[in-house]
Amino acid sequence: MSDIVLRSITLDGKASDILISSDRISEIVPAGHGFSSDVPAGAEEMDCKGKTAIPGFYNMHTHAAMSLMRGIGEDAANLQDWLNMIWMKEKNIGADFIYWGTKVACLEMIRTGTTTFNDQYWFQEAAHKAAAEMGIRSVISYVILDRNDPEEAARQREQCEKSYEESLKWNDGALFEVSAHAVYTVSEEMLLWAAEFARKRSLHLHIHLCETRKEVEDCRSLHGGLSPVEYLDRLGVLGPNVIAAHTLWLSDNDVRLLGEHGVTCVHNINSNTKLASGYKFRYNELRDAGANVCLGTDGCASSNNLDLLEAMKTSAIVQKAWRDDTHAMPLGELFSLATTNGARALSLDGGVIAEGKLADISIVDTDSTFFLSPAPFLANLVYSAHSDCIDSVIAGGRFVMKHRKVEGESEILEGARMVLKQIS
Amino acid sequence: MSDIVLRSITLDGKASDILISSDRISEIVPAGHGFSSDVPAGAEEMDCKGKTAIPGFYNMHTHAAMSLMRGIGEDAANLQDWLNMIWMKEKNIGADFIYWGTKVACLEMIRTGTTTFNDQYWFQEAAHKAAAEMGIRSVISYVILDRNDPEEAARQREQCEKSYEESLKWNDGALFEVSAHAVYTVSEEMLLWAAEFARKRSLHLHIHLCETRKEVEDCRSLHGGLSPVEYLDRLGVLGPNVIAAHTLWLSDNDVRLLGEHGVTCVHNINSNTKLASGYKFRYNELRDAGANVCLGTDGCASSNNLDLLEAMKTSAIVQKAWRDDTHAMPLGELFSLATTNGARALSLDGGVIAEGKLADISIVDTDSTFFLSPAPFLANLVYSAHSDCIDSVIAGGRFVMKHRKVEGESEILEGARMVLKQIS
Repeated sequence: MSDIVLRSITLDGKASDILISSDRISEIVPAGHGFSSDVPAGAEEMDCKGKTAIPGFYNMHTHAAMSLMRGIGEDAANLQDWLNMIWMKEKNIGADFIYWGTKVACLEMIRTGTTTFNDQYWFQEAAHKAAAEMGIRSVISYVILDRNDPEEAARQREQCEKSYEESLKWNDGALFEVSAHAVYTVSEEMLLWAAEFARKRSLHLHIHLCETRKEVEDCRSLHGGLSPVEYLDRLGVLGPNVIAAHTLWLSDNDVRLLGEHGVTCVHNINSNTKLASGYKFRYNELRDAGANVCLGTDGCASSNNLDLLEAMKTSAIVQKAWRDDTHAMPLGELFSLATTNGARALSLDGGVIAEGKLADISIVDTDSTFFLSPAPFLANLVYSAHSDCIDSVIAGGRFVMKHRKVEGESEILEGARMVLKQIS
Repeated sequence: MSDIVLRSITLDGKASDILISSDRISEIVPAGHGFSSDVPAGAEEMDCKGKTAIPGFYNMHTHAAMSLMRGIGEDAANLQDWLNMIWMKEKNIGADFIYWGTKVACLEMIRTGTTTFNDQYWFQEAAHKAAAEMGIRSVISYVILDRNDPEEAARQREQCEKSYEESLKWNDGALFEVSAHAVYTVSEEMLLWAAEFARKRSLHLHIHLCETRKEVEDCRSLHGGLSPVEYLDRLGVLGPNVIAAHTLWLSDNDVRLLGEHGVTCVHNINSNTKLASGYKFRYNELRDAGANVCLGTDGCASSNNLDLLEAMKTSAIVQKAWRDDTHAMPLGELFSLATTNGARALSLDGGVIAEGKLADISIVDTDSTFFLSPAPFLANLVYSAHSDCIDSVIAGGRFVMKHRKVEGESEILEGARMVLKQIS
């Protein structure tokens, strides 16, 4: 891996030179001042005058290969109907579908500035291979979904162990985690097993939580009045390693528990609104209680894209609207949700552009009408521009996009078209 | 103006050849079948294989030159505070600011597939000139805003007459209309005058209406309990020539009146949410009552861009969310709001791609991951893709963008930078 030098790039308003060595940002100096030692021979230089550096985004909840399932269930009446339509299609897909679907997703994420994604889907090896080839940081789940079937549970325990053992061979920065799909699809026994499995191996536990009002109501009637959050708390599942997607329908007590346990709560505004699951995400309350709030897109079958800039804008304007407060979810915090909070959730040394940090950087082209006005850069980036302002992307110290070109794009389209017949 | 031939373009799912003569679509035939007569010499041909034709969008409420005022009032507490900050800045701007600001807006609209916009801002001649040079269809207002000042009212009546006389010289398809800013900024006398002026000359009357709860409450206390809609009804102002922006805070009786009078109601979801004005736009009710619902972006100082595809997605998902109904604002209707309903509002022979209609066409590049899935084209266009899928745009029978290139782009950025000092 050769070193990279970004010349005259704007960073926090100042023209800077950035030196990247291996997968880290090794030095940042004022533009033209020279690094502390000579730039290694063979380093790749990019003139970034007029461009601005931002950290790569963290998409903290997705089902990447669903990039090939857009439009399935477009007319579903609610989340449960939609899931039933999806599950029917998923019976027919194989590892090659996941491989090409994940490649498509990575391509879209790169083009919209995301360099780390937290995935929950099938065929871990295929998903990991796709992400590794695309050069972006993946968190790959083994997904527990036993529907109270003890035989299935036994099979999944064995598979999860195997999948974990396989993941120990990964050496590209990818993380392995355990997913328990949701409280309504995973038995109590397996929730406990998954939590224990994750804890013993210092893995994250990824779960859908309080996505719909029905999920909460059903849980309360099944579990003596406990909400899904209270139920998981009683089982001893909650902790700072838990990444809970959606957390939409929360009581005050739920908010308190999620905060106390330092749970990561991932907001997926586009999916939640489109599937009419809800929209009153309790951002202020979760933040104040101590939960770690992040953003996600969910899978493309519901969201229907993986664009974090779009997710940022929609999240903020919907918060402002239903709270009747223009100051809700201010820009600085909003940006953290997509960057530093993601790094915090995954205990990664990233999310900011600073010496010693992971070299996950998007280079924004500000030479367009969107950045003309005297508004703060972040306001123009989030509210005015589109993701095509992202000119180049570095992930883990390597260019994964240069001037809007990602290598192998047409092969990905071709591969995807080939596997799409599995769901037609 | 030379003829244009679009070869092998997908139209309603079928490969077609489209012949454009002057500002009209003159013939549509199955691809390769040949037109009824020879294509005129010198016609401009474009090979559109793998691309799809859609009608140009109608942005039915904007303040175009505010493209240079993004971020002003980014932290305002509400619409009134925001307006005060804007009005302060507006004192210093001149015709050149409007000219370059409108050019910037047209550039962005072209790049996002909008070919007609309904504007409400200052310096009509400058705005018209900018739009005409950019080649897109503008509806330019003279804006009445007298704040109960009789001298100001007299001045504006005179100016409006003059402005109208000037507009009679336009021969580029641009329309002139009268705007009455809002019931809280225009005197009763001037509302009546503007309505009469418009009616006598068959002009549209463009007005902000029921944008905030405060506007409604204030009107009720000032006008014997009447809502802004009831007040305008009592004055005899409402009619099918009225284009009412926002119409967010409506009683059942307001909905009934807007429907009965066939008023055009323009929904501006991004502006309304971001300024926390509201979000429960009564789409179903207005549609059922007979009102003509369209979409707009509002000015960039609030919205903060002019992207109708983004407005479509946000409108639909927010409707689905607060109505708790995944079927709310279905795709076919949503698309009409941005196309045919705009044409209907302006009595223009456009909004669809058919023989004899105005040649306002966007050419969508579907060779990307966003269009891979078997989802309906409109689902992929609105929910998955970004506006950069729009490859080329024809407005009034002329190419205004070809393969993402708009002529004079760098001159526009330069001009805009020059006038920005007026608000710094």
